[in-house]
Amino acid sequence: MSERVTVNPHLSGLRCLACGRSRPVGDDTAGCPHCREAGAPANLRCTYTATPAGGVALPYTAHITLGEGDTPVLTGLDAGRLGEADVRLKLEGANPTGSHKDRFSAFAVSRAVAAGYAEVVAASSGNAGISLAAYSARAGLGCKIAVTGSAPARITGLLRDLGAEVHVLPDLARWEYVARFRTSRTVLPVTNYHLPAVGSSPYGIEGFKPVARELTAQFGGRPPDWVVVPSSRGDLAWGVHLGFAELDAERVPRMCLVEPFPRLSAVLEEGADPRGTFPGGTRFQPSIAGNTVTLQAVETVRRTGGRAAVVTDAEAEPWHRALWRSGICLEPSSSVALLAASRLVEDGRAGAGASVAVIGTAHGFKGM
Amino acid sequence: MSERVTVNPHLSGLRCLACGRSRPVGDDTAGCPHCREAGAPANLRCTYTATPAGGVALPYTAHITLGEGDTPVLTGLDAGRLGEADVRLKLEGANPTGSHKDRFSAFAVSRAVAAGYAEVVAASSGNAGISLAAYSARAGLGCKIAVTGSAPARITGLLRDLGAEVHVLPDLARWEYVARFRTSRTVLPVTNYHLPAVGSSPYGIEGFKPVARELTAQFGGRPPDWVVVPSSRGDLAWGVHLGFAELDAERVPRMCLVEPFPRLSAVLEEGADPRGTFPGGTRFQPSIAGNTVTLQAVETVRRTGGRAAVVTDAEAEPWHRALWRSGICLEPSSSVALLAASRLVEDGRAGAGASVAVIGTAHGFKGM
Repeated sequence: MSERVTVNPHLSGLRCLACGRSRPVGDDTAGCPHCREAGAPANLRCTYTATPAGGVALPYTAHITLGEGDTPVLTGLDAGRLGEADVRLKLEGANPTGSHKDRFSAFAVSRAVAAGYAEVVAASSGNAGISLAAYSARAGLGCKIAVTGSAPARITGLLRDLGAEVHVLPDLARWEYVARFRTSRTVLPVTNYHLPAVGSSPYGIEGFKPVARELTAQFGGRPPDWVVVPSSRGDLAWGVHLGFAELDAERVPRMCLVEPFPRLSAVLEEGADPRGTFPGGTRFQPSIAGNTVTLQAVETVRRTGGRAAVVTDAEAEPWHRALWRSGICLEPSSSVALLAASRLVEDGRAGAGASVAVIGTAHGFKGM
Repeated sequence: MSERVTVNPHLSGLRCLACGRSRPVGDDTAGCPHCREAGAPANLRCTYTATPAGGVALPYTAHITLGEGDTPVLTGLDAGRLGEADVRLKLEGANPTGSHKDRFSAFAVSRAVAAGYAEVVAASSGNAGISLAAYSARAGLGCKIAVTGSAPARITGLLRDLGAEVHVLPDLARWEYVARFRTSRTVLPVTNYHLPAVGSSPYGIEGFKPVARELTAQFGGRPPDWVVVPSSRGDLAWGVHLGFAELDAERVPRMCLVEPFPRLSAVLEEGADPRGTFPGGTRFQPSIAGNTVTLQAVETVRRTGGRAAVVTDAEAEPWHRALWRSGICLEPSSSVALLAASRLVEDGRAGAGASVAVIGTAHGFKGM
C-alpha cells in the first residue's frame, strides 16, 4: 500500500535550535553535530523558504497517511477545577493507531521513503512503536522496534501483527541497538538513541505542527492561553509550539509539560543540568517514562513562559479512575494532563475566562 | 459530567417501517406494538415535521457527546481488487470508544436523559456495551450491561472501569434479562431483547444518519454507488440508509450488508422466514455474530437494490492478517467489509469508476 511522497519545494534544510547553524536536508539522527561535539546535544528543526498563509509548512506536501489528524476537541469537562475555565480536551486517540504518534509517523516514515531507506528503526514499548509499525507497513517499508523486556505481550503482539521486527532488549541497550544504524543507508533511526538525549526525527516532529492550526480553529480563531501536554522528551510539546510560533510568533500559548517525577521541573526550578539523568520512575504512566530531559523540552517552556508540572503515580491513579467513570477513556499517561490543567486553574495560572487546550495523547484501549 | 439534552422541536413521533402506523414519541422498546402482536415484529423510526436543508434531522439538537462523528475516510487501498474502483474506508474507530456505536449511544442515552430514566440496560459483549457504558457515565446515568460467559476479561474489565454494572448470563438469557425492564420507568432498554428480533433503539439509530451526510461530502458532494457495512441486526445499515434517503431519496446508495454466515442472505436469496433463527456461528467476527435477522436489515437491502454478502471465518482470517500487515488496524468484524467490497469490484457489481464507501466499524485495539 505504498503511496507517493512529494517533497515540499520550500523545504530548505535543518537548523539547530541551540546554535542556529543550518544544515542541508539530511539525516543527522543525533541532532546538531556541532552542539553534540561541544557536549550539549540539541535537536534540529526543518526550515522553509516560504510558509503557507494561515497554515503551517510541512516537509512533504503528499505523504504516507492512514487518516491521521483533524482530531476533535471535547468541552463540558468538570472534573476537579476544569469547569471553571474554558478547558478543551483534544482527542488524539481518534488517530488511526490511537495516539498522537500517528502525526509523527506520517512524516518520519515519509522522510524514510523520500530518502530511499528500506526500513525505519525505533526504541518504543508503546504508542510510538505501534504507530511506526503501522505507517511503515502502509509505506511498504520494514520496521524494527526495540522494546524492553517489560513490554506487555499485547503490545509486542500488535507490533508483530503489523509486521514489525520486534527486538526485546534491556532499557539502555535499546538505544544502543538503534544507534547501530546511525550511519546506515538502508535503515533510518527515527527515535532518540543519544545520551544526553536529543529528541526524535525532526521530520516527524513537523507532523505535530498542524495541532496548532487545529486548536486555533477549535478555540474560535485564536490560540488558547495554555496548552497542556504529557511529556517525556518533549517531541510533541516542541512540535506543537513550533506550529503556534509559525502561525503567529506574537501569540504563542504558554506550554505546560506534564511529567511523572521531577526531570524537566528539576532543570527549570532547581537548575539541574538537562544533560544529566534524573532519578525516579513511573509504573502508571509508561508513555511518559524515561530518565532524561531534552533541550527542546526546556526551550518549549522557556520560550513560552510555560512550566513543567509533576503528577505522581499516587495522584494520577485515583484521578484516572474517576475520569473513566465520567466516560473519558484516556490512557493514564494522558489523563494526567487534565489533572495538571485543573491545577493551573486552581493556582490561578489559568483563571476564569482563560482558555486551556489539553492534549489527550492516546485512548485507553491498548492496555497501556 | 452530565450535559443538557435539547429535544428537536420538529420531532413528531415514531413510525413503523412495516405498517406505517404512527406512534407518539415514547419507548416502544420492542418495536411497533401492532406488528409485534401480528407476529411480524418491526422497528420504529423517528419522524419530523421538518428536516434541515442539506442535512439530516436528529431527535436532539443538543445531546450527550464524547466527541463522536465526523470520522475520516482513507483512500489508496489496494488489497484484493479494491484498487480498481474508488473505494474509501470510513474509520469509525476514530470515535471516542473506538467504534461506530458511539454515534448510537450519543442518541440512545440522550433519549434516556430526555425522558427521565436513571439507567440504560443493554445486551452486548463488545463495542456497544463499552460505548453505552461510556456515554451513560458521561450523562451521569447508570448502565447495566448483560454479557455472555465467553466475553473476554478485558471487555468486562473495561465495562467496570466505565462504571457499568456487568451481568454475566447465557446467550438468550441476556435478552430475557434486558426484557425485564421493558415496562420500567427508571431503566431503559436500548438494544434488542425481542425474539423474533426487531433492532435497537430508534433514537440511537438516528445517530447513524450523519454518516450519510459525511460520506456524501467525502465523495465530493454526491453519494457513493455502494455502501458496504458489517451487519448483524442491521442497526447501522438501516440508520445510514435513512440518512441517505433523507438527503436525496432519488439517489440512495446500494447497501451491501456483510455477515459471517447466511442469515440475511438466506432470507433474500432462499426465501427463508426472517423471523426464524439461523444455524451457524462465528469465532472470528464476534461483533456481527448472532442467529437472527431483522426486517430493518431486509428492508435496507430491498429498498436500495443492495445485497447481503457472506464472508466466512476461514476467508476472513487471512484477509484480516494481510490488512494489518498493510497498516490497516481494523477489528476482524470490520476487515470483512473490505473483502466484501473487493468482491463487489471483482464480480462487476462495482465496476471501474464505481464509488464504494466501506464502513470500518471499529479499530482493532480492544482485543475483539
